[in-house]
Amino acid sequence: MNNFIKNDLLLRALAGANVERPPVWMMRQAGRYLPAYMELKRKYDFFTRVQTPELVAAITKQPIDIVGSDAAILFSDILVVPQAMGLEVQMNEGVGPLLPNPIKTINDFNRIQIPDVANALAYVFEGIRCTKQALNNEVPLIGFAGAPFTILCYMVEGKGSKTFEKAKQFCYQEPQLAHRLLNMITITTINYLEQQVIAGVDALQIFDSWSGLLSPEDFAVWSEPYLLRIYQALVAKVPVIIYPKGSWYALTSLSNAGVKALGIDWCISPAQARSFTVRNTVLQGNFDPAKLLLPIPQLKQAVTAMIDDFGVQHYIANLGHGITPNIPVANAKAFIEAVKNYKQ
Amino acid sequence: MNNFIKNDLLLRALAGANVERPPVWMMRQAGRYLPAYMELKRKYDFFTRVQTPELVAAITKQPIDIVGSDAAILFSDILVVPQAMGLEVQMNEGVGPLLPNPIKTINDFNRIQIPDVANALAYVFEGIRCTKQALNNEVPLIGFAGAPFTILCYMVEGKGSKTFEKAKQFCYQEPQLAHRLLNMITITTINYLEQQVIAGVDALQIFDSWSGLLSPEDFAVWSEPYLLRIYQALVAKVPVIIYPKGSWYALTSLSNAGVKALGIDWCISPAQARSFTVRNTVLQGNFDPAKLLLPIPQLKQAVTAMIDDFGVQHYIANLGHGITPNIPVANAKAFIEAVKNYKQ
Repeated sequence: MNNFIKNDLLLRALAGANVERPPVWMMRQAGRYLPAYMELKRKYDFFTRVQTPELVAAITKQPIDIVGSDAAILFSDILVVPQAMGLEVQMNEGVGPLLPNPIKTINDFNRIQIPDVANALAYVFEGIRCTKQALNNEVPLIGFAGAPFTILCYMVEGKGSKTFEKAKQFCYQEPQLAHRLLNMITITTINYLEQQVIAGVDALQIFDSWSGLLSPEDFAVWSEPYLLRIYQALVAKVPVIIYPKGSWYALTSLSNAGVKALGIDWCISPAQARSFTVRNTVLQGNFDPAKLLLPIPQLKQAVTAMIDDFGVQHYIANLGHGITPNIPVANAKAFIEAVKNYKQ
Repeated sequence: MNNFIKNDLLLRALAGANVERPPVWMMRQAGRYLPAYMELKRKYDFFTRVQTPELVAAITKQPIDIVGSDAAILFSDILVVPQAMGLEVQMNEGVGPLLPNPIKTINDFNRIQIPDVANALAYVFEGIRCTKQALNNEVPLIGFAGAPFTILCYMVEGKGSKTFEKAKQFCYQEPQLAHRLLNMITITTINYLEQQVIAGVDALQIFDSWSGLLSPEDFAVWSEPYLLRIYQALVAKVPVIIYPKGSWYALTSLSNAGVKALGIDWCISPAQARSFTVRNTVLQGNFDPAKLLLPIPQLKQAVTAMIDDFGVQHYIANLGHGITPNIPVANAKAFIEAVKNYKQ
């Protein structure tokens, strides 16, 4: 199917092929900075948006039409996985996610399960099919899931946090339970991503949004083994990008373990990220989202400088984290255009 | 005066002298995990505690008596500086600090000034004198201030934040104003720390709590030059520890610029921190505060392993960030004892 995608820059870059310029997309590109998204957001609550295939397709496609990204990323949320595993998830506007009954003890395991994802998350796969139709093979579609450690963070802490202390302390104090939970999440996530591929996604990204709260030693225990299991289970099917936010120290180990595409945040220089990873690793990132508010000429200069530093090959231009609601569409567009107009 | 301090391990380590074991203290050691502190907290509000010399002395001394730290750190807050510069600072229990009128435009500069710190912060210096008396030269007293970038974060954002987006965007969009503000904070901070030394502190720590939100490139613009100005202004008077939380990428540059003592968080291994810094740099850290909840035998093993990794010389045992309110005193004590009982 990939052969027929008209703009296949992302897939060529992920395959290690030579490209004329880097592909570009933005984390959270289907999001609140887009007035067209805000319009749908006013009409439909969060779970309606995520669970209605036509809305998923419309929202996923918006940034392709409006800012011109080279790839679409499915509109969904990493917390659909704990929800499918049996935990209640609330999305409260302006407050962030809330899991009112988080995992605390062995007894809480009775409330969760490895679900039949084909059934429990059927709405996601239907959303993918609908989106593929809407995209009409113009650009590839990226599917995604949260990494097991990040999902554990929410399942144990019950809400967002600066430090996810309770979640980390659960790992340290109840290591066997924590590994049991991570294992359940990993199996669920692999099943989930396999179904995403069957439904039609062309690439995958695994978001380890909170791995950067772990020491290098603990990353090796609580995050990396599960990331690698997922990576290895899926990579023969579609290319997989691992994004371990904040875990600069893990780039070498993940790269040595065979991970060919790594997302990085802006707190590492392109040169250092290259030096930490195996030659020809595809790096994705790492523009500071706060810099999208630069005056447009400076913004474009900064993007050009970033590409100079990463190099055109084995590189996917992106932000280092999600685009924020306060960014004018013109600035998001300027980011994308600066990549598209890059001249070596 | 240092000559007369009975337990001068910290000062010897900072001077690069050989020590029989590493000195140990904990960030936020005078804090909410101590029932003795909570008792005073119930009786006196935040500003009363910070502004009453006898309370400052009593609170600062608590962890010396209760958990046995090798050094005291003044009980105060980094936000006394923006307060002295003319911004209102509110401390709301459970919500964190609030600066209701943050800096947004050039006009806001009319509301702030470089204060006469000897006068505006006289209560801090009186607190130091009172604390020195209370400590009776048993252990050294560490004074501190926030780094200019971190203080700017609060002065512009107006409150705590995960990303301090507004503060960063202020820097990127209004670079001249931002540098003007950083310069004012730097001058104030140098004056403030000089007065702390005159009042009797034996060492200083500069907390750049939010520098880790900057890219390496932006750290070099918005944080490092101001850190170095402060360091160089003070280091001939007392030893100065720079703690740029999260900015692992800056360790090499700070160390090359002559900074002899660097605090680090747990997201870097001791070996890597050593490899990033000049030989014989004093490193301070970096136990994950969440690990203080390990069962005590494992906690002690983890502390021993940490010292093994850093080495006994040119090292100050500490946490990688502040101790949290949920830590039992017995565990805090076990952390300190594990360092004191370390055998090479």
